[in-house]
Order: sequence, then C-alpha cells, then structure tokens
Amino acid sequence: MTEVSTREQQVLDRIERARRRRPKVTQDRITLAHGSGGKATQTLIEAVFLDAFSNPMLDQLDDAASFSVNGSRLALTTDSFVVSPLFFPGGDIGDLAVNGTVNDLAVSGAKPLYLTAGFILEEGFPVADLVRIVSSMKAAAQAAGVQIVTGDTKVVQRGKADGCYINTAGVGVISYPGRLGMSEVQPGDAVLVSGPIGEHGVTVMLARGELDIEADLESDTAPVHELVASLLAVPGVRVMRDATRGGVATILNEVAKAADVAVVVDEAAVPVGHEVRGASELLGIDPLYVACEGRIVAIVDGSAADAALAAMRAHPLGEQAAVVGRIKADPPGLVLLNTVFGGTRICDLLVGDPLPRIC
Amino acid sequence: MTEVSTREQQVLDRIERARRRRPKVTQDRITLAHGSGGKATQTLIEAVFLDAFSNPMLDQLDDAASFSVNGSRLALTTDSFVVSPLFFPGGDIGDLAVNGTVNDLAVSGAKPLYLTAGFILEEGFPVADLVRIVSSMKAAAQAAGVQIVTGDTKVVQRGKADGCYINTAGVGVISYPGRLGMSEVQPGDAVLVSGPIGEHGVTVMLARGELDIEADLESDTAPVHELVASLLAVPGVRVMRDATRGGVATILNEVAKAADVAVVVDEAAVPVGHEVRGASELLGIDPLYVACEGRIVAIVDGSAADAALAAMRAHPLGEQAAVVGRIKADPPGLVLLNTVFGGTRICDLLVGDPLPRIC
Repeated sequence: MTEVSTREQQVLDRIERARRRRPKVTQDRITLAHGSGGKATQTLIEAVFLDAFSNPMLDQLDDAASFSVNGSRLALTTDSFVVSPLFFPGGDIGDLAVNGTVNDLAVSGAKPLYLTAGFILEEGFPVADLVRIVSSMKAAAQAAGVQIVTGDTKVVQRGKADGCYINTAGVGVISYPGRLGMSEVQPGDAVLVSGPIGEHGVTVMLARGELDIEADLESDTAPVHELVASLLAVPGVRVMRDATRGGVATILNEVAKAADVAVVVDEAAVPVGHEVRGASELLGIDPLYVACEGRIVAIVDGSAADAALAAMRAHPLGEQAAVVGRIKADPPGLVLLNTVFGGTRICDLLVGDPLPRIC
Repeated sequence: MTEVSTREQQVLDRIERARRRRPKVTQDRITLAHGSGGKATQTLIEAVFLDAFSNPMLDQLDDAASFSVNGSRLALTTDSFVVSPLFFPGGDIGDLAVNGTVNDLAVSGAKPLYLTAGFILEEGFPVADLVRIVSSMKAAAQAAGVQIVTGDTKVVQRGKADGCYINTAGVGVISYPGRLGMSEVQPGDAVLVSGPIGEHGVTVMLARGELDIEADLESDTAPVHELVASLLAVPGVRVMRDATRGGVATILNEVAKAADVAVVVDEAAVPVGHEVRGASELLGIDPLYVACEGRIVAIVDGSAADAALAAMRAHPLGEQAAVVGRIKADPPGLVLLNTVFGGTRICDLLVGDPLPRIC
C-alpha cells in the first residue's frame, strides 16, 4: 500500500500547490464561458468556490462527492439543467435532469438510489409542457431504478427565467470494493470511450433552428449505470467520467492535470458519427469538445483494455466503444492528439463557449 | 404499537383518498401563485408531481424525505432560492440557501451533514456579488456544522435569469429514536412557535424599495439545528416544520389536513414584532402567512407543552417562543383562529401570492 499512499500524497501535494497558485477571475462579470465546462469554468470554480468551501471531499472535484455515514460509503451529486430548447430530438430537459445525476453517481462507482428535483418555473410557462417534462422524468427514473423522493418548486416573474430550469441532486451507495479516482491513473493505462461522441450537443444546437443545417440526429441521453456495472466487473478500472459539458477533451484534460500524466489520443480511433462530424465542420467546432449525455470515458489498466472494451461492447450503450488513447508519463498535464493527418497537437481546455446551454 | 399502526393506516388511507380525488390544475399556464407555498402550489404538487413520481417517501410531503441505507436512517431535502433582492438586511441568498436546507433537515429530526450547491448565473452578473454570496454560504455552513461537498454552475444569457439562483440539497443522518411526523399529531397536542414571525418576508419585501415603508427590520435567517436539538431532548414532540414560504398558517393547514385534526390558534398568543405588525397592516397581509427563515412550528404532546416551551426559550433563537394553540378533533382539516377581537375565523391556505420571491 506504500506506493498508493505515496501517489495519494503526490495528488494532495498537487492540490495544495494548485491552491497556492489559485487563479484569479480576471473579468468583473460572469460570461457564458464561465458555464462552458472549460477553462473559464475551472478558473471560476478554483478562484471562487474552492477558495471558500475547500474541504477534502469538494477538492477532489469528482462528479460526485463521497463520504461515510455509519460505515456506509455514500455518493452525493448535483446538477442544474438549463438546456435550450427544452424539448429536442431524443429527449427533453426532464430525462436529461434524471440521467445526468444518475450518470454522475454511476461513474463514481455508486448505485444511484434517490433523487431530489428542484424546479424554477417562469410565470406563463405552459402547464402542459411541465406535465410532459415531469412525465419524462418519471420514465427516466423508472429506467434507471431510482426514486424522486423530495422536491421544490419556485416561480419567477416573466422574463426572469427561460421557461423551466431543473436541479436534481442524487444519493447513491458505493459498494464497489476497488479504488476509483484520478489519483489511480498511471502511465500505461488505456483510455476508452463508450460510443460515438457529441450527439447530444449537436442535436440541441440544431434543434434551436438558428442554423441552416439539417441532420438526422438524436440526443444520446441515457442512463449509464448498467454499462458502468458491466465495466466494473473487469478488474483494473482507474476512473470513469460521463462526457457532458466540455466533452471528452475536457475530461481528458482533467485527468492529465489531476494525475499529472500525459494523455495521448489517437484522433482516428475516436468514434464520431457521420452526422456529428459533418455538422461540427459546418459549426466550426471539434466533436471532442461537444457534450454527450450517455457516453463515458474510462481509464483502465493497459493490460485490462481488451477486457474492458469487450465488457462495454456487450452492453447496448457501448456497442461502438473504442480504445482511443494511452496514458504516458510525459509531458505531464497535457492532452496530445495524434491527428488523422499524421501530426500531433495539444488538445487544451476549451476557451469560450461555442455551444451554450446544451444541458 | 397497535394504536400507532392504526393511526398510520388512517394516514395512508387519507393519502389514498386524496390521490383518488387529486385536484386538477385549472390554469393553462404557471402563475406566481404556483410558487407561493399556498393553495395553488399544493394543487400543482398534487396534480403534476405526486401524480408522476408517487412513492411512499415523496407522498409524505415532509420537508425532507427519509430512507434507510444499510441500516442508517438518512434524510434528503432540496430547495431552490430565487429571492429578490439578493442582498437584504440580515442576510443574502447565500446564507438563506444554506440555512434553508439545514433547517429542512433539522426539523425532520436529522443532523445536517453534507450539502450540494447548484448555481444558475445570469450572464453579466458581477463576480464580486458572487464572491460575497459564496462567502455568506461559507459562514453559514460553518455556523451550522455542515460541509458543501459538491456543486454545479450554469450560466444563462442576459435576461434569462435574475442575477443568481441557487439550489441546495442536503443529506443528514437521523439518530433521533422517536417518531416524528404529521401522523403523530393528536387532539390535545399543543402548538408552539419558536419566535416572532414574518420578519424575513417583510424585510425582503421592504428591501425591494418599491414601497414607501421604512422599518427597522432584519431577516430572521438562522440555522435552527441547535434549537431543534434542545427541543427534541423533551419527550413528546410530534412534528416540527420551519415556517418558510406561506408562513405559519400554511404549515398549520398542512398539519390539519395531513393529521385530519383541527388546529385552534389563539391570535393574541402569536409572537409578532411591532415592525412586522405595522408593515403587514400597510401591505394588507397577515403575518401568519409571511415567511420566516429561522422560526419553527412544533406540535408537542399537550402535557409536554411547558417543558417544550422552556427548552425553546433556553436557546437564543427561541427566547420569544410561545404556545400559540391546541390540536382538537373537530372540525377536522381546518385551522381556526380565535382573533384578538374575540371572534373565530377559518385561517385557510393562501390563495395567490402577495409576496413573491421572498426565498
């Protein structure tokens, strides 16, 4: 266990160093980029939230916090949903709000159990739309085997919201006996993605109808708890994340920085559907930065890569899973992309927010 | 235990009857009244949310849901905060968001432990205001002995929010060995209020500066977990609630309906400060319907009323606690007010929302 403890200490040291050199928010006012999941979001979190709330659970910046109550290991997570439009091909804000929180619990190694639901409604919002959203939440909760056990509803005046915002928080129980976390990632590990990326983000973007692009696309919103359970049956899983805001690239940057390793991605291996690729080119965005709502990124022991891939592919949500890269020691903190053109470029955190309010 | 089981069955029967005669939302669109905590809110909850999500935990409609995980009894609650203005005498949206969730856990008999924080920020919101809010949350969390362990930030375009909305969810552990709940309330019980009512709601209303009323008032926002702990040391506590949206009258109506009893309130016994009384008269509202954010309503065994009152008064937040009424068998489902003028009137659920966005 000495090695693990040393690694843990290294991670704690890095957190401490990061705290000392904590960035400052240079703007006076909040911009859309602060909600992108990218660089500005990270700066805001570090400069404002971590600075005030700092505690060992929060500082991990995992998708869910974990703690023990009377010997039971629990996970707790929250997400607010402000997607626009509220209804889009393949889903709506309702199933997004349930699946998002279910997935944050699942990738933390927890069995999702109980959800809260907080609604902020705009005066004048159609009751029929609320009923439709709530009905989606019910179906999503049933599909994921969770119960919505408590809630809250606030109404704000016309013009003070955009129809309906939903927050869900979720509690799960962690029974997985292994260790999961960024600090487990090591050189030699493999990087897997569970399926074609970017479908949710591009679908929502096109659903706004502001662009003259048509594509036969649906959101990938889905609960990944069963896919995760299949994967966790394979020994050697280091860490998992669901690739939402900021997409796969943002997660890989978090891995690189938190574990102080290099992530080397083979661009040609990343599963991207034809429609997403085409729309992304027209939109001038890279699918690696586009949100999914039913895809996971998993880092696994290199020697377990084949078994992990097989486990993912055995599940309907993972049929197109792929090994997309490797963890290396150098250069630490960076994500490198071996492009389809044979070059290598740094794949940094997103600056700005080309796709606001996709979740 | 037969008596208790019979009572429980009666409550379940009532819930079942209520489900069968579930009201319909007659309006096509959401109105501010749906967020008042009054009659319209209740109709919306019953017609839309309970209808979809129905489960034994949610159907209790307690301030927090409770469930067991590996033998530990946990409580889970959520609240969104949309108060306007964000800063007001005595507090701001930040400590409101922490205290509100701490209090919902405390009155459920739980020790508050961990909180989530979800921010919805409007593009252009001053970072300095966010820092001030977060700093209040930090102080409030420290005062209540809880940790904010996970969070989320979304940014929406200018004009799609009102500066800053916050959702908090909270987990607590229930170690209180007794039974608490609406179903425990019985004829002969006493009704206690922990202090002067309505200070929060009136303070926020006046802080908007739209009314030509000046008053030397501060919000009563405070964490009640220690006050509750003092009270729970007295045997015979049936149920507690913090009197937020809809005020004391709304809670007493919930008690009357859920326990199928009459609640008889002595208006002269209800602690109302001079400033709140004066401002309420000018505003044309009844302080019984005005939100507090640091006051609780407790129903206790009639023979324990004096001990409960003494326990409350021994705590700084309960110095002006009072016994304000009694539970009777008839007329079931109603709150009756013995007025200061010697008459008796029905004190029904609020219709409409005279004080929108006070929390």
